[in-house]
Amino acid sequence: MNPGELLIIGGAEEKCVDGDVLNVFFELSKKNQGGIGILPTASKIPDEVSSVYVKTFNKLGTERVIVLDVDSRDRADASDIVETVSSLSAVFITGGDQSRLAEIIGGTKLYSILHEKWKAGMVIAGTSAGASIMARQMIVAASMKQDDDKLDIEMGTGFGFLDNLIIDQHFSQRARFDRLLSAIAENPEIIGIGIDENTAILVKDGVFEVIGEHQVLVIDGKSNEFIEIKEAENGSEELTISGFHLHTLTHGYSFDLSNRKIILKKENGK
Amino acid sequence: MNPGELLIIGGAEEKCVDGDVLNVFFELSKKNQGGIGILPTASKIPDEVSSVYVKTFNKLGTERVIVLDVDSRDRADASDIVETVSSLSAVFITGGDQSRLAEIIGGTKLYSILHEKWKAGMVIAGTSAGASIMARQMIVAASMKQDDDKLDIEMGTGFGFLDNLIIDQHFSQRARFDRLLSAIAENPEIIGIGIDENTAILVKDGVFEVIGEHQVLVIDGKSNEFIEIKEAENGSEELTISGFHLHTLTHGYSFDLSNRKIILKKENGK
Repeated sequence: MNPGELLIIGGAEEKCVDGDVLNVFFELSKKNQGGIGILPTASKIPDEVSSVYVKTFNKLGTERVIVLDVDSRDRADASDIVETVSSLSAVFITGGDQSRLAEIIGGTKLYSILHEKWKAGMVIAGTSAGASIMARQMIVAASMKQDDDKLDIEMGTGFGFLDNLIIDQHFSQRARFDRLLSAIAENPEIIGIGIDENTAILVKDGVFEVIGEHQVLVIDGKSNEFIEIKEAENGSEELTISGFHLHTLTHGYSFDLSNRKIILKKENGK
Repeated sequence: MNPGELLIIGGAEEKCVDGDVLNVFFELSKKNQGGIGILPTASKIPDEVSSVYVKTFNKLGTERVIVLDVDSRDRADASDIVETVSSLSAVFITGGDQSRLAEIIGGTKLYSILHEKWKAGMVIAGTSAGASIMARQMIVAASMKQDDDKLDIEMGTGFGFLDNLIIDQHFSQRARFDRLLSAIAENPEIIGIGIDENTAILVKDGVFEVIGEHQVLVIDGKSNEFIEIKEAENGSEELTISGFHLHTLTHGYSFDLSNRKIILKKENGK
């Protein structure tokens, strides 16, 4: 058995029946039996957030769309939740706050069954906070101390479906280059991936393909010749780095995560 | 005779007597006779903008600080302006709108005397708009068409003291990575240099050294393996690029513009 596809979305994907990104998830979900689970734990308004996805997937043709009502660690350990997830073909993790996902689900029975089912082929998608949670390390928050100052970045532990990369989302739209570059300067072995809104990467067998409207940016610090991080008095960082590699990809292009190169043969018809 | 130093400032430099950046300019200005000229043409409030610099340079010890009152192409061709500039040791170009500098001064007698004097050793500094104008090509404006959309970038022609690079300013503070990357994707032979506020590069003999509080980011597209620019219906751009190089530098580090590498021996005491 191979692990299932991961569809990692930069947030604000079109939630209509002709949206590229959700269509890709819908098509992937059909490869297994059981229907789609919506996991809205990141959100403080889970019912509102879930209902949009339930409607869209119903319209697309999924008969069984189940909201996984998990708002506490108790619920994340509950046997009915574990049983429901076991029966699903695919899970969609909504946006919200990635810290809530980590705090409520990390290390629970739900966490374990998600890993187990994913390894057996379950498709898992996540958008915004649900995208950041996919990797082992994630950016939890970045704050500007003052108007003219630099970033202070807080990292956290995600679900770890992917090692050796950090996902950032709403990337161009929220101008998050600086915070991703800082994260990679601190972890140069790890690939930094910044996904724009209404854009996604589909990860399978160590390769990702870009789907959707905008760009995906890749920061590769492994090639670095020099890194120096100076911490200013206020906790912000100033970087001196040399020889990082930079790539951006659009719809249809793929990136090989093992050799860290764009695959230039563009796939058509996807 | 060698050309004079260029001090290119990312805007918002400290305007007190102990500000690093203006001190460097003051020290350089002393190598020639004649005092400092302030060129506030980029600004629509030239008197206000100039007076701060006049005060600061007076306090630092420059006896002759002259405001070059040039608000039209007629004034930029006037013989008294040309004579005044001929007598100066150094010129400081203030912030404002870089288009005004290009439109009012480009191709005039003032433009010519600035080039002539610079080639003979005059020190020229520019901040914000005055920084962008230093290179042959400059980013004039970048606008977001809609909240969730990408950039539409307008380029212009600067004074051209430097070829083969594009300067952007207020770089981290205004999150301008995307617009500089787009400019370099369109001109991959040219080096993109993004200078943060209260930070400057001192250019001399094909090398720049960083001075000041924050970072300077360098985008080098010459190493690219692939570039594709897709124009969306609304005129915005989506990039697929492969193998760009990325560097950031802080105070005391230098960059060799010819081989496009950081010079890792850090200079002390500057």
